Amino acid sequence: MNATILLIACPDQPGLIYKITQVIFKHNLNIISNGEFVERNFNYFFMRTEFSGDVDVALFTQELKAFLSDEAFIKISPRKKRDIAILATKEYHCLSDLLVRHAFNDLDANIKCVISNHQNLEDLTNKFNIPFHYVPAEGLERTEHEVALLKIIENYNPEFLVLAKYMRILSPTFIGKFNNRIINIHHSFLPAFVGANPYNQAYERGVKIIGATAHFVNDNLDEGPIIAQSVIPVAHSHSAKEMAQAGRDVEKIVLARSLKLVLSDSVFVYKNRTIIFD
Amino acid sequence: MNATILLIACPDQPGLIYKITQVIFKHNLNIISNGEFVERNFNYFFMRTEFSGDVDVALFTQELKAFLSDEAFIKISPRKKRDIAILATKEYHCLSDLLVRHAFNDLDANIKCVISNHQNLEDLTNKFNIPFHYVPAEGLERTEHEVALLKIIENYNPEFLVLAKYMRILSPTFIGKFNNRIINIHHSFLPAFVGANPYNQAYERGVKIIGATAHFVNDNLDEGPIIAQSVIPVAHSHSAKEMAQAGRDVEKIVLARSLKLVLSDSVFVYKNRTIIFD
Amino acid sequence: MNATILLIACPDQPGLIYKITQVIFKHNLNIISNGEFVERNFNYFFMRTEFSGDVDVALFTQELKAFLSDEAFIKISPRKKRDIAILATKEYHCLSDLLVRHAFNDLDANIKCVISNHQNLEDLTNKFNIPFHYVPAEGLERTEHEVALLKIIENYNPEFLVLAKYMRILSPTFIGKFNNRIINIHHSFLPAFVGANPYNQAYERGVKIIGATAHFVNDNLDEGPIIAQSVIPVAHSHSAKEMAQAGRDVEKIVLARSLKLVLSDSVFVYKNRTIIFD
Amino acid sequence: MNATILLIACPDQPGLIYKITQVIFKHNLNIISNGEFVERNFNYFFMRTEFSGDVDVALFTQELKAFLSDEAFIKISPRKKRDIAILATKEYHCLSDLLVRHAFNDLDANIKCVISNHQNLEDLTNKFNIPFHYVPAEGLERTEHEVALLKIIENYNPEFLVLAKYMRILSPTFIGKFNNRIINIHHSFLPAFVGANPYNQAYERGVKIIGATAHFVNDNLDEGPIIAQSVIPVAHSHSAKEMAQAGRDVEKIVLARSLKLVLSDSVFVYKNRTIIFD
Repeated sequence: MNATILLIACPDQPGLIYKITQVIFKHNLNIISNGEFVERNFNYFFMRTEFSGDVDVALFTQELKAFLSDEAFIKISPRKKRDIAILATKEYHCLSDLLVRHAFNDLDANIKCVISNHQNLEDLTNKFNIPFHYVPAEGLERTEHEVALLKIIENYNPEFLVLAKYMRILSPTFIGKFNNRIINIHHSFLPAFVGANPYNQAYERGVKIIGATAHFVNDNLDEGPIIAQSVIPVAHSHSAKEMAQAGRDVEKIVLARSLKLVLSDSVFVYKNRTIIFD
Repeated sequence: MNATILLIACPDQPGLIYKITQVIFKHNLNIISNGEFVERNFNYFFMRTEFSGDVDVALFTQELKAFLSDEAFIKISPRKKRDIAILATKEYHCLSDLLVRHAFNDLDANIKCVISNHQNLEDLTNKFNIPFHYVPAEGLERTEHEVALLKIIENYNPEFLVLAKYMRILSPTFIGKFNNRIINIHHSFLPAFVGANPYNQAYERGVKIIGATAHFVNDNLDEGPIIAQSVIPVAHSHSAKEMAQAGRDVEKIVLARSLKLVLSDSVFVYKNRTIIFD
Repeated sequence: MNATILLIACPDQPGLIYKITQVIFKHNLNIISNGEFVERNFNYFFMRTEFSGDVDVALFTQELKAFLSDEAFIKISPRKKRDIAILATKEYHCLSDLLVRHAFNDLDANIKCVISNHQNLEDLTNKFNIPFHYVPAEGLERTEHEVALLKIIENYNPEFLVLAKYMRILSPTFIGKFNNRIINIHHSFLPAFVGANPYNQAYERGVKIIGATAHFVNDNLDEGPIIAQSVIPVAHSHSAKEMAQAGRDVEKIVLARSLKLVLSDSVFVYKNRTIIFD
Repeated sequence: MNATILLIACPDQPGLIYKITQVIFKHNLNIISNGEFVERNFNYFFMRTEFSGDVDVALFTQELKAFLSDEAFIKISPRKKRDIAILATKEYHCLSDLLVRHAFNDLDANIKCVISNHQNLEDLTNKFNIPFHYVPAEGLERTEHEVALLKIIENYNPEFLVLAKYMRILSPTFIGKFNNRIINIHHSFLPAFVGANPYNQAYERGVKIIGATAHFVNDNLDEGPIIAQSVIPVAHSHSAKEMAQAGRDVEKIVLARSLKLVLSDSVFVYKNRTIIFD
């Protein structure tokens, strides 16, 4: 099916849905699914429409712009697999989950490559015939390491970068090149336990629930817009290590769920929050 | 704010959203929130719109009918508290939860009366100045008892009946008078453990999770359209009685949540399933 | 049934369970339930035993002390309802939940009184024939207000204080009088969103899950040992106010669950964490 | 560490914990963790103790038998990886999850082989260097097929069989050879939706929550003792196919969690229920 996804975000005004669906109707496109949301605190309008039919994108966009505010965000893209690059460090569980889904055609993405600052995931990646790039960080300045990363990444021109337990901090310069296009899985129920060793922190605080958070990465570590979260109960009898083991299952599921949303263009980012059409 | 809720359900056709929002726009009404859904298995369209502004209901309806299929369901009602009657038996937890929310203005309903086939909840109901009617069932045929119930209920003319742990089976004749207007809380995660003593059944089956289900009541016991469900984990160490105690907290929360949806006209029923705009 | 609860916490050593159960066996007591836990990080042993039968507490304790370390914590108490005092401010949902459970004999406590710095919950409390004390805080130093509170509390000599949405900070002096005997319900999934307005914080951070935490109160606000936590999913469409409404159901359930544990002497506190025998 | 797991199940009697731990103490064994449970409905006692130290199993058993009832179940086994065989059909997600955990040494098992009645999982299995056996069922009587399966299985002498989405029904004769040693993952929240196509059933019933159940397999399909269950929320907008997709993540996590319990000898079966020491 030849489906197209239309995203619009703009200041709210009366008649927006009417005017937008009028354009869709006139172009003889068939709406498959449709959702709108108005963020009342800011009177901001969001709409995601998936339709089938051949669309003249230039004309279509022109007709929308005729009545939308100048600051309106408009994105029109075909429903198709997106190209992604995965960055990992040493932990296997998120990477393997994505590789297997990809191998069985259950990921709306083409995994173009896996990059890691360690070598232990090379064998796993090779099993699935995905290019693996070892980019060690030891002895390098952050900038130098990122230059090496970028050189590889740019070769593949991915739409999204997926940090599948990539444990190094990325610089604002690096992040700036992929605005709202880097997805990270953080091993805690953010904003609890930001930073390193969240499971140790969770153990010491004696929490009864732990979780994981998938989010876009922006300048401030662990503070980007949250896409998906999930939790599991724990008890006093769990050591920090056992919490980490239990947490890994949550991490991989939350990362996969967030990718399903992002790869289907179902996520808007607005004022450090996500608007999600699920 | 003078808000109105519009519900439309009809066979899907191209341009429906456009045509409906055109009518809303022409009437100069301001959409507060809007949702649509197409049930693809049956190509059936559902839309719930909440708007503010004065509406000429007759004209508005006429304009909608001009393009909607003859079988279209259209409901236009003001956003306001709905009148309800509560039926209970002996257990207090769901009834008390509703009475307290009502007393503090947190229930979108006027509780017109409480009716029970036992007397032990009379004192509780009286505390909150709600009329309590004791309608014993002992020694009566089902029909006789229901005639007695109806006589009281009709006095209050409630829009919805809420079965807050009402433990008697209602006849199809009785139910037929309140089509999709009776909400029941069932003490299990339906369709598991239909019928009586679900916690005993759950104990004997050794389940690790129990739950509660709020649903509309139709002809077949425990088989009406499900509105809301929730669960909690249990363990081998829970007796059937302890499961029941733990389950009560889930029951009252699920019932309250389902009422929030029903009382705000957010629930469609179609082919024994609910379509919910939340 | 004449049941007794024995709590022991002490440094671990070989044979502890054997030696303790030997004393129980020799005293001809019948174990109803038994649990042990060793905190491996500190090699500390915890045991909770519930037994039936008449026990000579002095002799029993003496025989335990014969082999337990001097620093051992030993508590022997009958299984019975505990006296509690409830402190509230303006919100009704936690208080009403406890009052109703109490009225129907489903709380293992005698509610001796309700104290609030506002008057709006007086009517609710009166409905359930519990003494209500209005102790306004306005215009008073914290110390003065706490002196007024203590004067009332001491009259009732409660074993536990329950902060049922009591919104004022208590001084270390006050707290020191009730070591591990004050239970608070915090309206967030601690340690996320400590302090005031957690739902506003949650909204602004764009979290996808919110929660509530019941914990003992110690010197540092919101940092006492956690007893119970629970969460519910939220979405971008929830305003901070709607999050607060949804959160209230979680708060009251989590508070009730934590009281069930505390009132049955099932909770040890060790190094700011709880060890719970459930 | 040289750890041993002791399981005892027998009719309850006074002093059991004392007498059992006395034997452990006399043998100079160091208890690592200990749990007991009495099923009050049947006055049946269960105990799982993990201890370190060298144990003379024959003498140890003899001393236990001296005071335990003749019907007592006693199992003493070293803490070590157990041998398992995996049966699958066509779906990859549970098998791949186990293969990856195994490859990274996170499964307390040696996967001796994978057997399937289809060939599409052969390539996946080969990636992880595990023997794959294709045993087609087409054109064979159930008995013939099972004879073929058994011939392969017996070669590997596995302690447990894991049905990782194995979609064929096993005969009582086959099952009888592996009493409480076959673990199945069922794609529903049992006892809801037993049998085939549970996601279609769930869609048609309009449930708001779906789940998965790991259980031992006994004579009656889908009615064996439940080991672990988990659920996720769904909505009217999910098709049966989307429910199945979402359900797969729950299935693989629940199967892995149940194996963690079974492979550590933490699960007793009694009267079709499990007693779990977690």
